[in-house]
Amino acid sequence: MRIPYDELFDGLLRVLLKLNFEHQRARLCARLFADASRDGVYSHGLNRFPQFLRMIRNGIIAVDAEPELAARFGSLERWDGKGGPGNLNAYRCMDRAIALSREHGIGCVALANTNHWMRGGSYGWQAAEAGAIGICWTNTMANLPPWGASDPRVGNNPFIIAVPRAKGHVVLDMAMSQFSYGALASYRMRGEQLPVEGGFDTAGRLTRDPAVIEASKRALPIGYWKGSGLALMLDMVGALLSGGCATYQIPADTERETNLSQVFIAMDPASVHSGTAVSLADQIVEHLQSSPLGAGEQVRYPGERVLQTRKENMANGIPVEPAIWRELQGLS
Amino acid sequence: MRIPYDELFDGLLRVLLKLNFEHQRARLCARLFADASRDGVYSHGLNRFPQFLRMIRNGIIAVDAEPELAARFGSLERWDGKGGPGNLNAYRCMDRAIALSREHGIGCVALANTNHWMRGGSYGWQAAEAGAIGICWTNTMANLPPWGASDPRVGNNPFIIAVPRAKGHVVLDMAMSQFSYGALASYRMRGEQLPVEGGFDTAGRLTRDPAVIEASKRALPIGYWKGSGLALMLDMVGALLSGGCATYQIPADTERETNLSQVFIAMDPASVHSGTAVSLADQIVEHLQSSPLGAGEQVRYPGERVLQTRKENMANGIPVEPAIWRELQGLS
Repeated sequence: MRIPYDELFDGLLRVLLKLNFEHQRARLCARLFADASRDGVYSHGLNRFPQFLRMIRNGIIAVDAEPELAARFGSLERWDGKGGPGNLNAYRCMDRAIALSREHGIGCVALANTNHWMRGGSYGWQAAEAGAIGICWTNTMANLPPWGASDPRVGNNPFIIAVPRAKGHVVLDMAMSQFSYGALASYRMRGEQLPVEGGFDTAGRLTRDPAVIEASKRALPIGYWKGSGLALMLDMVGALLSGGCATYQIPADTERETNLSQVFIAMDPASVHSGTAVSLADQIVEHLQSSPLGAGEQVRYPGERVLQTRKENMANGIPVEPAIWRELQGLS
Repeated sequence: MRIPYDELFDGLLRVLLKLNFEHQRARLCARLFADASRDGVYSHGLNRFPQFLRMIRNGIIAVDAEPELAARFGSLERWDGKGGPGNLNAYRCMDRAIALSREHGIGCVALANTNHWMRGGSYGWQAAEAGAIGICWTNTMANLPPWGASDPRVGNNPFIIAVPRAKGHVVLDMAMSQFSYGALASYRMRGEQLPVEGGFDTAGRLTRDPAVIEASKRALPIGYWKGSGLALMLDMVGALLSGGCATYQIPADTERETNLSQVFIAMDPASVHSGTAVSLADQIVEHLQSSPLGAGEQVRYPGERVLQTRKENMANGIPVEPAIWRELQGLS
């Protein structure tokens, strides 16, 4: 089932206004959810909205809480998210990092006490649309065993890098797990094996069977030991800079996951610009796209598929799960 | 064969002085090479020194060139490496990023026109020893096929994150390839298969056979499509910020690889410190180390093995390849 973007946005907005979101905050929150679905990140668009509402009702997400500056030193700031909606907090902090980068070349905001930011790529696109290079990440609850361990002790800590480009921003949005639990469930429901190894069975053997990994809770970090190390570092830097919680302090329950720590870095390439930067970004992308193909696949730059999906979904409507869409309409 | 650290350092120093390195620069350069071997990164310590000398003789590395400030905007600076020794340039730029972080909370130096920095972890340890969080990366020549492609078009672009910690700094030093070509050669010479898939054969099938990957030149990025994307982003950000070359402009020949672009970011956690940061780093590491083991392995934090190796090598001498050590002695 597909619905026009405006209808999706309006549906989300009405529910948020009923929950007493201030008008401008409701609009931004609705847009961030609708944009995620529009861009093909369905898991963090409309499909995530029912859980977002449950976490408001459970008192984990405070509708009215706005992030506050907690400490400042030059172009590095520490903000307190006050348990507010994760996407609004994250958007505010990337916005502040961008402003700092215009003053100082580079700006960094470390955010404590926030909630799930939904689609991490949102804040990369936000930076790129403002003409800034953006780098941001979040910690999460423990959902990934560190390399050599049998139980989840690191988060999958999504990490985003965005580079502005006139012909289409280049935005990488990647978690530290090879496959998310959402992706594992999709493969299982389609009766498919994973295209590459995605985790371990309970005996510690690598496997492509999604159901086996869901049962063992032993998803694989990208690059085995490497992604495990990177996940740990992102957690450490986020918690130390923000003064917030580290993964080991965050409830390991997706319905209660809160007090996250995040980092937002923006760099203003124009501040040290020599005039060739824009065309260089195009040339790098064009060199990549002209690669000879291996094994009948396609060579894409990060963000390329997002733009294709966006165009298609704006033309044909945004795909929604009928049950979730009906639930949303019942609430408004 | 093992030799005392001081003997290794002195041997390197004598050769550098003969090549007309200024005295303080010779000492720092010798220390960076010796420290890499001391810490177990043999491939970028003494074992890399003969190639470093060849590249000086070939005119690729300019012994006397010192990096110069090219543009400045607040806490973001662009430096020109002038084709000088890569390790000296990188050390200087991380030093400058640390100084900027003390002034502004965060500092970033983007370096163009530099040479191979040898062991990337050096500059992470440097930041951590100065009490700063350090993040740095370099681009390289194309040595990794992007996901879906058959020929190398992205670099393995080593990426370093370091967090200072009283009980032992936590330093991640990882390239974007699952295995370096040096590692592939080691497995082949020992007659071993890789522990996990490390690349493709010429038909595009994943393989654990190191010789097959050496022949196909199709090494695997960490996390398959994910590391491929991350490698591209690191190259783009490095080249755009520094105003230097991107991977596609760098000669794809290890003996002629030059004009690299690098980024050095330092953050001063003390500038926004609440007093709990130090113990939090310890607690994160201790929680990781107390993981139940999976499949009889060990759970280590990034940098832990370095400290073990350092201790052992300082006590028992630094392992050196006899042929390379004799060659060095013949030069001095």
